[in-house]
Amino acid sequence: MSSSPSDSLADGQPADNQLANKSQAWSALFSEPMSELVKRYTASVDFDKRLWAADIQGSLAHADMLAAQGIIGADDLAAIQKGMAQIREEIASGRFQWQLDLEDVHLNIEARLTELVGIAGKRLHTGRSRNDQVATDVRLWLRGEIDTLVGLLAELQRVLVDQAERHADVILPGFTHLQVAQPVAFGHHLLAYVEMFARDAERLLDARKRVNRLPLGAAALAGTSYPLDRERVARTLGMEGVAQNSLDAVSDRDFAIEFSAAAALIMVHISRLSEELILWMSQAFGFIALPDRFCTGSSIMPQKKNPDVPELARGKSGRVVGHLMGLITLMKGQPLAYNKDNQEDKEPLFDTVDTLSDTLRIFAEMMAGLTVKPEAMERAALKGYATATDLADYLVKKGLAFRDAHEIVAHAVKTAQAQGIDLSALPLDALRQFDARIGEDVYEVLSLQGSLNARNILGGTAPAQVRAQVARHRSRLGTAVAAKG
Amino acid sequence: MSSSPSDSLADGQPADNQLANKSQAWSALFSEPMSELVKRYTASVDFDKRLWAADIQGSLAHADMLAAQGIIGADDLAAIQKGMAQIREEIASGRFQWQLDLEDVHLNIEARLTELVGIAGKRLHTGRSRNDQVATDVRLWLRGEIDTLVGLLAELQRVLVDQAERHADVILPGFTHLQVAQPVAFGHHLLAYVEMFARDAERLLDARKRVNRLPLGAAALAGTSYPLDRERVARTLGMEGVAQNSLDAVSDRDFAIEFSAAAALIMVHISRLSEELILWMSQAFGFIALPDRFCTGSSIMPQKKNPDVPELARGKSGRVVGHLMGLITLMKGQPLAYNKDNQEDKEPLFDTVDTLSDTLRIFAEMMAGLTVKPEAMERAALKGYATATDLADYLVKKGLAFRDAHEIVAHAVKTAQAQGIDLSALPLDALRQFDARIGEDVYEVLSLQGSLNARNILGGTAPAQVRAQVARHRSRLGTAVAAKG
Amino acid sequence: MSSSPSDSLADGQPADNQLANKSQAWSALFSEPMSELVKRYTASVDFDKRLWAADIQGSLAHADMLAAQGIIGADDLAAIQKGMAQIREEIASGRFQWQLDLEDVHLNIEARLTELVGIAGKRLHTGRSRNDQVATDVRLWLRGEIDTLVGLLAELQRVLVDQAERHADVILPGFTHLQVAQPVAFGHHLLAYVEMFARDAERLLDARKRVNRLPLGAAALAGTSYPLDRERVARTLGMEGVAQNSLDAVSDRDFAIEFSAAAALIMVHISRLSEELILWMSQAFGFIALPDRFCTGSSIMPQKKNPDVPELARGKSGRVVGHLMGLITLMKGQPLAYNKDNQEDKEPLFDTVDTLSDTLRIFAEMMAGLTVKPEAMERAALKGYATATDLADYLVKKGLAFRDAHEIVAHAVKTAQAQGIDLSALPLDALRQFDARIGEDVYEVLSLQGSLNARNILGGTAPAQVRAQVARHRSRLGTAVAAKG
Amino acid sequence: MSSSPSDSLADGQPADNQLANKSQAWSALFSEPMSELVKRYTASVDFDKRLWAADIQGSLAHADMLAAQGIIGADDLAAIQKGMAQIREEIASGRFQWQLDLEDVHLNIEARLTELVGIAGKRLHTGRSRNDQVATDVRLWLRGEIDTLVGLLAELQRVLVDQAERHADVILPGFTHLQVAQPVAFGHHLLAYVEMFARDAERLLDARKRVNRLPLGAAALAGTSYPLDRERVARTLGMEGVAQNSLDAVSDRDFAIEFSAAAALIMVHISRLSEELILWMSQAFGFIALPDRFCTGSSIMPQKKNPDVPELARGKSGRVVGHLMGLITLMKGQPLAYNKDNQEDKEPLFDTVDTLSDTLRIFAEMMAGLTVKPEAMERAALKGYATATDLADYLVKKGLAFRDAHEIVAHAVKTAQAQGIDLSALPLDALRQFDARIGEDVYEVLSLQGSLNARNILGGTAPAQVRAQVARHRSRLGTAVAAKG
Repeated sequence: MSSSPSDSLADGQPADNQLANKSQAWSALFSEPMSELVKRYTASVDFDKRLWAADIQGSLAHADMLAAQGIIGADDLAAIQKGMAQIREEIASGRFQWQLDLEDVHLNIEARLTELVGIAGKRLHTGRSRNDQVATDVRLWLRGEIDTLVGLLAELQRVLVDQAERHADVILPGFTHLQVAQPVAFGHHLLAYVEMFARDAERLLDARKRVNRLPLGAAALAGTSYPLDRERVARTLGMEGVAQNSLDAVSDRDFAIEFSAAAALIMVHISRLSEELILWMSQAFGFIALPDRFCTGSSIMPQKKNPDVPELARGKSGRVVGHLMGLITLMKGQPLAYNKDNQEDKEPLFDTVDTLSDTLRIFAEMMAGLTVKPEAMERAALKGYATATDLADYLVKKGLAFRDAHEIVAHAVKTAQAQGIDLSALPLDALRQFDARIGEDVYEVLSLQGSLNARNILGGTAPAQVRAQVARHRSRLGTAVAAKG
Repeated sequence: MSSSPSDSLADGQPADNQLANKSQAWSALFSEPMSELVKRYTASVDFDKRLWAADIQGSLAHADMLAAQGIIGADDLAAIQKGMAQIREEIASGRFQWQLDLEDVHLNIEARLTELVGIAGKRLHTGRSRNDQVATDVRLWLRGEIDTLVGLLAELQRVLVDQAERHADVILPGFTHLQVAQPVAFGHHLLAYVEMFARDAERLLDARKRVNRLPLGAAALAGTSYPLDRERVARTLGMEGVAQNSLDAVSDRDFAIEFSAAAALIMVHISRLSEELILWMSQAFGFIALPDRFCTGSSIMPQKKNPDVPELARGKSGRVVGHLMGLITLMKGQPLAYNKDNQEDKEPLFDTVDTLSDTLRIFAEMMAGLTVKPEAMERAALKGYATATDLADYLVKKGLAFRDAHEIVAHAVKTAQAQGIDLSALPLDALRQFDARIGEDVYEVLSLQGSLNARNILGGTAPAQVRAQVARHRSRLGTAVAAKG
Repeated sequence: MSSSPSDSLADGQPADNQLANKSQAWSALFSEPMSELVKRYTASVDFDKRLWAADIQGSLAHADMLAAQGIIGADDLAAIQKGMAQIREEIASGRFQWQLDLEDVHLNIEARLTELVGIAGKRLHTGRSRNDQVATDVRLWLRGEIDTLVGLLAELQRVLVDQAERHADVILPGFTHLQVAQPVAFGHHLLAYVEMFARDAERLLDARKRVNRLPLGAAALAGTSYPLDRERVARTLGMEGVAQNSLDAVSDRDFAIEFSAAAALIMVHISRLSEELILWMSQAFGFIALPDRFCTGSSIMPQKKNPDVPELARGKSGRVVGHLMGLITLMKGQPLAYNKDNQEDKEPLFDTVDTLSDTLRIFAEMMAGLTVKPEAMERAALKGYATATDLADYLVKKGLAFRDAHEIVAHAVKTAQAQGIDLSALPLDALRQFDARIGEDVYEVLSLQGSLNARNILGGTAPAQVRAQVARHRSRLGTAVAAKG
Repeated sequence: MSSSPSDSLADGQPADNQLANKSQAWSALFSEPMSELVKRYTASVDFDKRLWAADIQGSLAHADMLAAQGIIGADDLAAIQKGMAQIREEIASGRFQWQLDLEDVHLNIEARLTELVGIAGKRLHTGRSRNDQVATDVRLWLRGEIDTLVGLLAELQRVLVDQAERHADVILPGFTHLQVAQPVAFGHHLLAYVEMFARDAERLLDARKRVNRLPLGAAALAGTSYPLDRERVARTLGMEGVAQNSLDAVSDRDFAIEFSAAAALIMVHISRLSEELILWMSQAFGFIALPDRFCTGSSIMPQKKNPDVPELARGKSGRVVGHLMGLITLMKGQPLAYNKDNQEDKEPLFDTVDTLSDTLRIFAEMMAGLTVKPEAMERAALKGYATATDLADYLVKKGLAFRDAHEIVAHAVKTAQAQGIDLSALPLDALRQFDARIGEDVYEVLSLQGSLNARNILGGTAPAQVRAQVARHRSRLGTAVAAKG
């Protein structure tokens, strides 16, 4: 297993390998070049070039191992490292010439490398196939994106926690079925989203474990006859393990689907928050205002100020869900091992990541700029007999069974509705008609603030609980950041 | 209702309308400009500029009507027409300066028009809103794309019909459950796809009726107080009708979803054909070869010739299905009338159209270049007792009930299997063991060709039927083209 | 081709055909019976028995044609008809014994027929396979369901038209981006949904054309050697044509997907209407009340009255969308001709039909019972400067370019907002500060009623237009019903 | 806070609470009973009764805590426990009377409890709402199902590992693009699926962590004023934590979506394996046979033996994917907290679990019964120049750069193809024409067995590696089972 360039090859002959002659034919086996239409249809370089940094990183780790195993020489390794450094610089500075004829990011970089360093470049692909190479690149790239997204989720959570603390005492009507149900703290409401985004981050990190495994060494599908040290490559790349089956390694796209499902859930949560922001900003609710820089006007209606950002984000949930569906459809029924269908995994994945990171970034900024209108919220909470349950609970504490208390209160609400007033506006005599055990202390229970404070159990809406949760989240998010850094 | 520019405005004051001052603020109502992040997040000009031709066409029809109704002057109309001619030329030649600050294709063109022709440009938007404008543009554009796609479907059908005629007598094993079932003509098999693509074209044309209706005149959502003549605009634009409800007109995206569903079905059919091409080109089947210009090799395995195009097309079905899912998710639960979510309808629609037209184009070329291997097909047809049903039918014609004949033939097949031979290789004596009514004429029935010819009913696989269908399709497709032209 | 039962078979030997011996083995070729687990996994009789009426109808049409063609005797036909009459009666009365061992509805009915009428029953399956039989049954069944659904859509439209007429003058704030945009008539708003449901019915009827084609005669996949008269069967069954390719006929499930896509759009429209009903019924809007019989309470909150029906319907849109996606996934990549995957087409199709018909029925009843609160609607319309566009239009009519008028009005709105009053509450002097051409007549333009009446163009919201549309819909829906009846 | 029944209530007055009077009206607030149509549309008892065991388990834990906290008396607790024991027995034995009028499983059980034990039953619902109750029940139930599914996945893996060991030396052509690529061990191929199912189990267990959190105590949406001990309930139920935000707790359905996404991936894997089984069982491949008890015949073609189970399973992947999409659509855009839409989460979830468990069970049994045909596999591996890469690697080891060796081998394959023979059948002289460094030892490299053995690196296809992986999986799966037990 020599690594020194043989003389007969030093002159580059046969130099016209398939990297250079796609414009002629794929290999000696092909009688004609790829048609232009096909070249355009099958080329991926337009979109997969964004994998360039991962591609170089993976190649360097592979070359390092090839040299360590004596499969290529130290001089080859040095040449490859030098060439890659230059390519990295060319790409970063925008001077790299991407060629459609070279199909994808991998062949573009490899062809340039061979141009720069000759035979050493040709040796790089030893014991490797594009199948395991692309799988490695996508995983490296996605691992980095997951880390960014987890950071963005943490930032959004931090903003929400800050707002929650600021509005721990602001009373909002809590809705079920969009009907006024019970008063809740606005801070409590915001923390519900913190829970969601925290779970989203958990899911991303669970997915990361499965993303962060090394396919390289699977070669085309069966492994290779070169004595590769796959564990070494995994260590170099910071991966948590090595894919244990070569066929699976080149055909597995679970990690992309799992990530997309987690992404779809994030966008579902964003769409729920958006729905609420849109409702709250409508004149009917009037609970909040968004900063003007997040709104647009109308080309025809001069008075308009529209919540474009949450609406668009709600719409973009469809996009991400669509990508998930596309990826699943793609994989369904595919036999082993690699099939070209899989090339279609990249665009949805890239667009999902872009959509998510733009959206999370903009939401963190927007939520920080939220203006809250406590009077409007409280006024709304007074409209829907939000403390009716408190009256029922009051009666239970006086000895009634809950089911019976429930029915008594329904009668009281009916009476108040007929008079167009709140329960708390009914005189004691009137209330005692429904149950004689009702006393003066009932009015405390019937106030919004009283109702709120009463729900002082773990997870409940009492401001004290909200503040406790704020503290818990602060501690959690702080740690998370440290761990990541 | 005067159309002459008022003096006080001739000087363009207040010239800094919202078209120009997005970089400041949307209107006097806004206290700050849109943030850069938001501008990028909400801008659509990067992708919706492809609507430019439709946008100009719609604007000219609107201006023509405004002038005819005396809402703008003849001089205004002339100025608008002149300006638009120049803009069209600028865009076509690539000299037009698209500005992200101007958000979308509509404001970009309008701002340039006002720059070129002054106050007349500002008058163009009279009685119109971006809501009805964009709805009109997308419909005009999609109508044109549907016509192109119907043409591409016809071309693909013509190629398949030609191949079907050429191979009307070639015998292929017909499969159910991918098990050899009965012999069929390869031409018959190809015509199955002609039926599918013919239905696909029907669906596109049905959808076209609903695409080709005019929203313009709905303004923002409620109609307008200007005496527009919407029927005139519809006639000018070749539309089949006018949307009868302004709220529906600006919020309806059914047409996009219906089109996407029809597109998804086309891709499902393409994916089925692709699956078969891939199977047929595998060494196990070996029924066909694809031209080299539609195949690629492997970076590691020198012997490979891979059916990349059908694989990629099969993969792209996921993409189009994903877009359909995205669009449905987008619309679900949206209240009337226009919401910004709808901006997200364009990218999936554009990508669906591009994917479809590239795929149909490439399939027409590829199917025309198909090499068929009749011996391999026939050899395969001999493997699976494909004429067993013919023997059962033979017995029925001798007086047995079909259900009983079925069971007798199962016994015969079992015997032949045990000897590793075909039914037609069993001697007459052996066959008569299963039923004494079997005579020498049975061997005619047991041949592939005999089986094929026997299925000579409408829609059956007999070569005579295949030729009749070829003639029918030729006549149908000819007419369709004439009608379209 | 004799149709008289042969003596040797009259005794029914070999009677133990595969219809009866599934509990033993499929046919002589099988060495063991189906495992119980597999039987349960693959059986469809639990759900496909709902096709029984279509199955009998199709079988009778097939038998009638077999007799007309001399393939079976008149006595056989008579026996089949008599047997089927009895089976129909048994099923309708619930006395039929469905057997899981007999797999599906088709074998259950055929086995019973043979039990009842002997050899004639065995002859029924001549020239037919379960593949074309099931395709025919599903189409017949779905055709009937489409007719029912079109009727239900018409009924719902009629209810909405009635409500629209009743509320042609009621003023509602029209929203874009859920922000108050311009005043619209509530009747106009309801008619937007009439447009949607009318398109939905169009789509169903377009799909019906493709559903209503006859697969029977395709047999397993290749056609049959019996001289069937497929056109006769099509006529007997009221079908519009005959499937022209046998392979396509048994494998095509386009019709199910196309129907499901149309169904998904109906549910998208229902979800949009539901969203609005839920909003309108919230305390924040308070625009409507739903009849108590469509609401539920809460097990804990005594004051609650929840709009369960629209919420559940909004949720059920997910179900129908899911079925569409399931069906597409099912078909993707399937080679020709029939594969068992297709058995999975039925449950989603059945559930889609059930969900749609229940939902349409309940919505027709619910919308008829809607209580409208005009004062609340009008009060809300006064909140958001809904007539700002009217002021801009007023200025245009005084000679300004629209774009300039738009900016002027933005200033006026800003001033009014600062004072917390509507534009119409600004004194003339104040208004003239913004433009001297404003006169006393501006107040007419600034009223909600004036704004509404001004939009008196085709498709606009003026009550006169609403009434014209009501008349148009009445005439259209009347005709449709007559055509259907 | 007394727990003794008050006298005035002991007589059960007002006994006609909403549990009993749905047929009259929901509560005093309702003027009419629910319409029959609505009752049927909104009732869930038909499908949610399968939650009964979880419902009782959750209620008992709640009651135990209420007593421990002194909120109900010890006598109440005893009565509830006694009543629940009887109800459990009634349901298990099928004697329980489910009533549509009582809407769902929760009210059915509670009503029966009250019937059996009087006021204690009415006290059970103290501090609880159906919102947190149903969320708890679904989680408890799903946790159990996940454990079952993980067990079924382990069983399927064990079967595959056994088959892999048995066929560690059987040579199969490995495919990429369904073209023969390189020889692989059949055992290696099966282990690829073991990797997939192992990841699937990981995902289920990750999801389980988020399923296994306690919503109870969130009450309707805001928490409760009773001093509940939520940690105690969580401990009693074996849950890993308590939902920390009441609004999130009642509205979160992430866990169902995450589970469904994991389920969809399992079915994608099943669909891939099914695709291969179907291919392998086709006459063209002929690699395997499935046991007869997993196949069916044809009603028309007597010779057929169809792989119904894998086909149906492939089809059922669509079903599960559809449910995932339905659930996502359901949640998209929902405002907090609980909305009735969420009732629609159950049927897709139930059907997903049933489909998965039936499918996994049947696949374990079927894969254990697989018959492998090594000669057919090996014959196929000899068809496609599967050792061409080995020749290239051989040349690299002689000093060529891989890219150049690749091109040389392409020429050699072309020559062999022209002669219709394998590379290994070319004489040494002929081979040396391509490169003089080729020696006699090349034939070892060109044999299938040589190729296989050469890929002896971690994850590669060499039989030694397959056996090592078998050992690893055995140890892993053993542990997993112990952990679960």
